[in-house]
Amino acid sequence: MSDSVFQHQHRVVYAECTLGNHVYYARYLDMLEEARGEFFRQAGWPLLALQEGGTAFPVIGVEIAYTGPARYDDLLTIQLWLAEMRGIRLNFGFRILRAAGPSLADGQTRHICAGLNEKPKRLPDGLVEGLAPFLRTRNEVS
Amino acid sequence: MSDSVFQHQHRVVYAECTLGNHVYYARYLDMLEEARGEFFRQAGWPLLALQEGGTAFPVIGVEIAYTGPARYDDLLTIQLWLAEMRGIRLNFGFRILRAAGPSLADGQTRHICAGLNEKPKRLPDGLVEGLAPFLRTRNEVS
Amino acid sequence: MSDSVFQHQHRVVYAECTLGNHVYYARYLDMLEEARGEFFRQAGWPLLALQEGGTAFPVIGVEIAYTGPARYDDLLTIQLWLAEMRGIRLNFGFRILRAAGPSLADGQTRHICAGLNEKPKRLPDGLVEGLAPFLRTRNEVS
Amino acid sequence: MSDSVFQHQHRVVYAECTLGNHVYYARYLDMLEEARGEFFRQAGWPLLALQEGGTAFPVIGVEIAYTGPARYDDLLTIQLWLAEMRGIRLNFGFRILRAAGPSLADGQTRHICAGLNEKPKRLPDGLVEGLAPFLRTRNEVS
Repeated sequence: MSDSVFQHQHRVVYAECTLGNHVYYARYLDMLEEARGEFFRQAGWPLLALQEGGTAFPVIGVEIAYTGPARYDDLLTIQLWLAEMRGIRLNFGFRILRAAGPSLADGQTRHICAGLNEKPKRLPDGLVEGLAPFLRTRNEVS
Repeated sequence: MSDSVFQHQHRVVYAECTLGNHVYYARYLDMLEEARGEFFRQAGWPLLALQEGGTAFPVIGVEIAYTGPARYDDLLTIQLWLAEMRGIRLNFGFRILRAAGPSLADGQTRHICAGLNEKPKRLPDGLVEGLAPFLRTRNEVS
Repeated sequence: MSDSVFQHQHRVVYAECTLGNHVYYARYLDMLEEARGEFFRQAGWPLLALQEGGTAFPVIGVEIAYTGPARYDDLLTIQLWLAEMRGIRLNFGFRILRAAGPSLADGQTRHICAGLNEKPKRLPDGLVEGLAPFLRTRNEVS
Repeated sequence: MSDSVFQHQHRVVYAECTLGNHVYYARYLDMLEEARGEFFRQAGWPLLALQEGGTAFPVIGVEIAYTGPARYDDLLTIQLWLAEMRGIRLNFGFRILRAAGPSLADGQTRHICAGLNEKPKRLPDGLVEGLAPFLRTRNEVS
């Protein structure tokens, strides 16, 4: 994968773990949201500013494959890229790895662009331009 | 304690547990909110209706003593009563027990009555009347 | 869908909601776990007993499509059925609905049967027999 | 407060917020655990190493006063110090502030030192020495 793929670090806490010392399956989605927030900030479009301007990206779908357990105190790397961006759709590909280690989970979160009335709307042109460098094809990330 | 103290049952799930097979310390607060919601519903003042009428009860303080671990699949009993109710204040006493077993946690959540603008306001008179049967002194609940 | 599909009720609490008054996308996975626990209990194979006997069902994949927001105090119905059960695999289909209302989410959680050492193993024969009545084809549930 | 008090930064995510755009009251306890983990790491006694050596610090009590709402995307500062450390007891004082802003919450989490069998035991001598610089009296932190 290109060195320029967005990466976010996350330290696993007890709050995220469950019996058997592994991260509870739903908590990876919390981590992904944390990473998306930093992705938009780094791209120059902080979600808070977008939200205050009347734009949000509700999730309409998630696919995630778990390939290994993350454990307490693991330092995880969350890689994010845009798998699709057009019209009202914005899809993130992701991969979660133990730092310098194997992949623990990968998949996609699918979003639409919506107003605060929850109605879909086209992605703002400026945003599409700003996020274009983060688009990756499936081949580029494997 | 009087038989009439409010009780709510809660089944512990994996999502609430952490390493070492016990409920994570913050999750008891989620359970208490669940129990308060049912308390208000049973008292005839569902929180959703209050909220739609412009009244909420933000938490301004919590004291909780943990006296034993709740574990996966435990069926817990959450007992709630009003420890104080006057002016803008509404304080809940609580006790969490394993069904027919020892107390696992007890304490108090302290709330104020507030409008949707987050400004404190007096408890509605009707509510104070409606909730009066749930007031207990410390002696009555020990 | 057959009347005999497993159903579990869940009341949405504030802890599950986020800005904009809707359930946070990861919390549906917590609800699904709660429902699976009750599914196994009703089927006569409580997860706690299985776990104490050395068998667990770690999640290896989730696909979920969100088709509408669940909101505070909604009483949700979670429908579960077995989409696949053979060898080491146990896949649940699910649908989450507002009681007597439209579907809000549907998808699949994919599990394997594993020992407490996290190594995959064949589903116990007795369990496969016991859960067989809950198998549904895609046509049967749409 | 002395400049040397331990500080940890935390960015508020949607997962932690609830209706009305504020952090859900239980999530502050998750943040405090995250901060404690970094506190022990910085002090040279990472919790994971302690845990692997058979020592943990289960929470036996929490007192928290909420003085203002944290909101989505707030960058919070969590200050931690030791309010008591002797015998089997280890109590943290804390304060949560919006960066360069007013205090949003303060209080105490009370812990005991325990073995992995959940039995209390004396704090290791080396640890008491190592953490001594983080002891503060109430006056020193107000």
